[in-house]
Amino acid sequence: MEVVEVHPAPLQYAYTFGGVAPLRTVRPGQALRLWSEDAFGGGLRTTADVTSNTPPAPGLNPQTGPFLVEGARPGDVLALHLVSLEPARDTGVSSLVPFFGGLTGTDTTALLTPPLPERTWVYHLDSARRTLAVELTSGAFSVELPLEPMLGTVGVAPAAGEVRTSLVPGVFGGNLDTPQMRAGTTCYLRVNVEGALFSLGDGHYRQGEGETCGTAVEGAMTTTVLVDLVEAGELRTTTGAPASAPATPRLEDDEHWMTVGTGRPLEDAWRASQVEMVRWLRELYGLDDLDAYQLLSQVGLAPLANVVDPAYAALAKVPKALLPAPASRAFGGVHARLREAARTLR
Amino acid sequence: MEVVEVHPAPLQYAYTFGGVAPLRTVRPGQALRLWSEDAFGGGLRTTADVTSNTPPAPGLNPQTGPFLVEGARPGDVLALHLVSLEPARDTGVSSLVPFFGGLTGTDTTALLTPPLPERTWVYHLDSARRTLAVELTSGAFSVELPLEPMLGTVGVAPAAGEVRTSLVPGVFGGNLDTPQMRAGTTCYLRVNVEGALFSLGDGHYRQGEGETCGTAVEGAMTTTVLVDLVEAGELRTTTGAPASAPATPRLEDDEHWMTVGTGRPLEDAWRASQVEMVRWLRELYGLDDLDAYQLLSQVGLAPLANVVDPAYAALAKVPKALLPAPASRAFGGVHARLREAARTLR
Amino acid sequence: MEVVEVHPAPLQYAYTFGGVAPLRTVRPGQALRLWSEDAFGGGLRTTADVTSNTPPAPGLNPQTGPFLVEGARPGDVLALHLVSLEPARDTGVSSLVPFFGGLTGTDTTALLTPPLPERTWVYHLDSARRTLAVELTSGAFSVELPLEPMLGTVGVAPAAGEVRTSLVPGVFGGNLDTPQMRAGTTCYLRVNVEGALFSLGDGHYRQGEGETCGTAVEGAMTTTVLVDLVEAGELRTTTGAPASAPATPRLEDDEHWMTVGTGRPLEDAWRASQVEMVRWLRELYGLDDLDAYQLLSQVGLAPLANVVDPAYAALAKVPKALLPAPASRAFGGVHARLREAARTLR
Amino acid sequence: MEVVEVHPAPLQYAYTFGGVAPLRTVRPGQALRLWSEDAFGGGLRTTADVTSNTPPAPGLNPQTGPFLVEGARPGDVLALHLVSLEPARDTGVSSLVPFFGGLTGTDTTALLTPPLPERTWVYHLDSARRTLAVELTSGAFSVELPLEPMLGTVGVAPAAGEVRTSLVPGVFGGNLDTPQMRAGTTCYLRVNVEGALFSLGDGHYRQGEGETCGTAVEGAMTTTVLVDLVEAGELRTTTGAPASAPATPRLEDDEHWMTVGTGRPLEDAWRASQVEMVRWLRELYGLDDLDAYQLLSQVGLAPLANVVDPAYAALAKVPKALLPAPASRAFGGVHARLREAARTLR
Repeated sequence: MEVVEVHPAPLQYAYTFGGVAPLRTVRPGQALRLWSEDAFGGGLRTTADVTSNTPPAPGLNPQTGPFLVEGARPGDVLALHLVSLEPARDTGVSSLVPFFGGLTGTDTTALLTPPLPERTWVYHLDSARRTLAVELTSGAFSVELPLEPMLGTVGVAPAAGEVRTSLVPGVFGGNLDTPQMRAGTTCYLRVNVEGALFSLGDGHYRQGEGETCGTAVEGAMTTTVLVDLVEAGELRTTTGAPASAPATPRLEDDEHWMTVGTGRPLEDAWRASQVEMVRWLRELYGLDDLDAYQLLSQVGLAPLANVVDPAYAALAKVPKALLPAPASRAFGGVHARLREAARTLR
Repeated sequence: MEVVEVHPAPLQYAYTFGGVAPLRTVRPGQALRLWSEDAFGGGLRTTADVTSNTPPAPGLNPQTGPFLVEGARPGDVLALHLVSLEPARDTGVSSLVPFFGGLTGTDTTALLTPPLPERTWVYHLDSARRTLAVELTSGAFSVELPLEPMLGTVGVAPAAGEVRTSLVPGVFGGNLDTPQMRAGTTCYLRVNVEGALFSLGDGHYRQGEGETCGTAVEGAMTTTVLVDLVEAGELRTTTGAPASAPATPRLEDDEHWMTVGTGRPLEDAWRASQVEMVRWLRELYGLDDLDAYQLLSQVGLAPLANVVDPAYAALAKVPKALLPAPASRAFGGVHARLREAARTLR
Repeated sequence: MEVVEVHPAPLQYAYTFGGVAPLRTVRPGQALRLWSEDAFGGGLRTTADVTSNTPPAPGLNPQTGPFLVEGARPGDVLALHLVSLEPARDTGVSSLVPFFGGLTGTDTTALLTPPLPERTWVYHLDSARRTLAVELTSGAFSVELPLEPMLGTVGVAPAAGEVRTSLVPGVFGGNLDTPQMRAGTTCYLRVNVEGALFSLGDGHYRQGEGETCGTAVEGAMTTTVLVDLVEAGELRTTTGAPASAPATPRLEDDEHWMTVGTGRPLEDAWRASQVEMVRWLRELYGLDDLDAYQLLSQVGLAPLANVVDPAYAALAKVPKALLPAPASRAFGGVHARLREAARTLR
Repeated sequence: MEVVEVHPAPLQYAYTFGGVAPLRTVRPGQALRLWSEDAFGGGLRTTADVTSNTPPAPGLNPQTGPFLVEGARPGDVLALHLVSLEPARDTGVSSLVPFFGGLTGTDTTALLTPPLPERTWVYHLDSARRTLAVELTSGAFSVELPLEPMLGTVGVAPAAGEVRTSLVPGVFGGNLDTPQMRAGTTCYLRVNVEGALFSLGDGHYRQGEGETCGTAVEGAMTTTVLVDLVEAGELRTTTGAPASAPATPRLEDDEHWMTVGTGRPLEDAWRASQVEMVRWLRELYGLDDLDAYQLLSQVGLAPLANVVDPAYAALAKVPKALLPAPASRAFGGVHARLREAARTLR
């Protein structure tokens, strides 16, 4: 399979979902290999660099895209299968940004307390061992953590003509910041505008759940992704009834179905993930709302994604192994097909 | 003073802040008389009309604008003084919209419970007595309420290239839904783009604080507004030190200084209003943070605006009569000047 | 009318609602004149005193009580009419307590940021002019504010055998911290245990809505209160149907009906106040839920009480003048009767 | 090792933490085998039983205890090691309780929407295969889920003389409802009163994270637990500096350190768990706040416990395998010692 390579020039990055002309047109079924800059615009390289002395230009969270998907129409479902994520630099960085993070006053939780001090940590990649050795300013502690690459940001143009910064997550995807957005995962997003206009970026070499301090091990990334489309008319429940596109992003890997709720307060992000998963279990198994609610209550996992962005993100995660195989697979089995296609690419 | 009259044609309304070409250019100092359609697009007229049987076309909360203000640059402060608000129809309507309102599950607080029933109330205006007589479907109760016109929505184009629907409030203003946005009030908004691009709409013939059921007495409105601009370089504290534009909307009338915080959960909207008022008291009186915090704690009022929109809005409100007159007035005294200019218009 | 005077000895204060033996037994209809110590236990007297150098002993928010009301049984409604509140010292104090207040990290909103500095403000009472002159450490500013005495704390023993500290508000009342708890107000509380076991304290010489910095102008208070009881069997709606006791505190003065919701996040405190007011409007006017919801949406005020305690408190407030007189008055007209009885006491 | 068996008589259960006389005295080092009734008081046995037709008497969430631990004093740390949890009946039940659960209006998130319908699911235990076969009213679906027993409730008497119902979680433990409270886990709780007065109950045969519908697979349980105590004076950081008891419950198993934050909104429960884990990582590794914050941000897991109780609970969970062994083990290595002692009991 041919793979389209895209490495944006410095001024080609997008900083919003919506509101940007397409970088390129792609077809359903196509494979892309995308280079993405890190969330700091590549500006932080040493432990002496902090955001106040190294202004990222021209913004934070640069996105590679948007890509116009031929034939995508509002109500369709865009399926993006992440084939592989490979660090594109040998260092990643995490940094405390003033008034940003989960354990400080912020722009959205405004307080009178001063910001926490700025500090930057550099993580040195050992490609062979696939580990990250942290470099602390203080030198007081050393640890090597496993490389677990993921994308903070994957999204499409929002509905209703909105344009949102690449810092915020929402029903259009965006800055979800979940470790589940990794190689082997298929991401399903409702198409809101002709051509879908998806983009991605904000590579993380690894991230804890919640992204507590506000930044992961941020790093430039080479992402191989397969693009597919499920047309609105093809969407069906297990009983063959017509279905509609997801109300909020859904993820699938070989072992799990997952939904991502966003919003504030955090219980509302959680509720959005749970209601969407109740709906998905109904579609997969022909259950009514209350039986699906019960099933989710006993089998669901609920890992947090981020509790630091302008909106939070929480996941409902159901292990496939706990349940019988559904009569018909999610979205007509697109995950399995893309998984298979991916083998030819690696 | 010449007054520019604008009555948009049906297809001229805006449904977003940002992302729309200017309807007209205005100059600082100019007076406008603006006709605005109601939040339902004029679609609900009788108690038999509900949103599910009367789809508003092409959207909710149509805005009159945007207006490009000559000379307005990012960092300046746009001052909009509301001279008068007069109902432009003889009926206003309120309606329960499925999955919208403060005491039901919604799009943002997703639940499994069914929506509340739809129901519409029509309010008949008696212009002479300035009252609104409610018409209940059930006929079980009758009451005449005072007419107290206000605007739900006043805002400018957001920063960072964002475009937001006219249903959401934010630091750019938008759907604040506070009863304080009434004749006699000056609204201060930070300019984010060249020309500011402000618009307004969502007239309410009256509204309770919180807008509990999700809709006020919605009605078409004729708004007379004076436009002014305070350039970034002119912004000063009481001691003459340079100041910067408000971080969130500020309001002023003859009796109060007010700040409007937005966000979710509601305590974060409240915090934003409080931190901005601490800052304003510092600017007005030369206090430090802690003394301003103390003063606000003992003199502030905290009326809610809305607890029903995709983001909530809360006000910090300080009665001027409780405090000594500041050495120099807010924004160089623009409110008093506009108040005076307004006399020539009514 | 005889007035029972109670001035607790230093070790007689209560620091919880529930879990304390009654200080005294009272009868419905009786008047009490109660001396209450301030929230700091009287420990802060000068601007040099802060909580870290002047430990209050043996706790914060000492309560005068509890009083066992003869004949009060679970399901009854205790009515406490505040006849007068008079400062019992000539100074009140407000102080920044580390990790307490609305614009800092706290025990309940845990952050890594350090506490704000400690600082104390002393307010000097001019009894004749009924003003409070603030003394700032910095001396940078002077202001005289009107004396507006209120009680932070009024409550009964909680249900389900719970015992709660006097720092938290809840459905049993407690640390509501609303400026509406002032002379002329009747407070209605559901009785949860035999004898009700009410207590009160936490006098404020004045307080802004929200109590932003965490403390009002705290001061010892002499409170004259009339105690009454509405038995469960007497509770009726306007149509004569049986009613049950309030789910959360209700307040009434000559001009307003008010309900107090408590909880976190703040929207949940607000929701509780709104749902209770919908219920009260149904009881008063024989409306159904949706008509009461509509009415409240257009006439309600929503002043915040506190956004700083371990649970927040918000009010729904309906001006009686906006509505026709109900066929039968709230709680059988107990407020008017107590108001009348109060005249003989002042 | 001798094991003390306790099977409470029907009227011996406790329904609060605090406020109850000790059921029995135990010594540090002692093993207990405790029978606990299910959360419904054993009242629901078939799919026809729901809480409205089968009132549990005399309350929900009956607790086995409290146990007075000899020598336990405020500031000490109680360590409870769960040796084994075995179902004490061959059926467990889950039920939708009106106005309870995460996706409906509740007592704490008051709305006007009616409750979801009541429905009960019965789970049949296959002891040999250690599975639970669900019985649906509708019969539409069948599934066998793995038995994964845990305790919803483990706690001590609260501080400050408070008494809390067994339905609420807090810094004293209580109704945490986390699947991590299972065999192999050691739970650390700060002692607040002489003798600690711990109790436990609310057995779950399995539960999803979040406990979405409000109830797990509730079942009577036989719990074997080892009791130990770390005195305040023995608490040390890795550098030998004095430490103090946890501010909120901590858990440890062979693979993880975990902290449990409680509160509302959910982000505040999460913040509490994160701040406590920052503190624990500081104690274990001698890091400063910011390095511990960074480390947690990249290695932490964040599974939710419950989002349905009157307060929510969230976990910070750090895999030991990702980090070097600390110089000295948590709480002097009590987990490993109890783990070893447990071998002799099974």
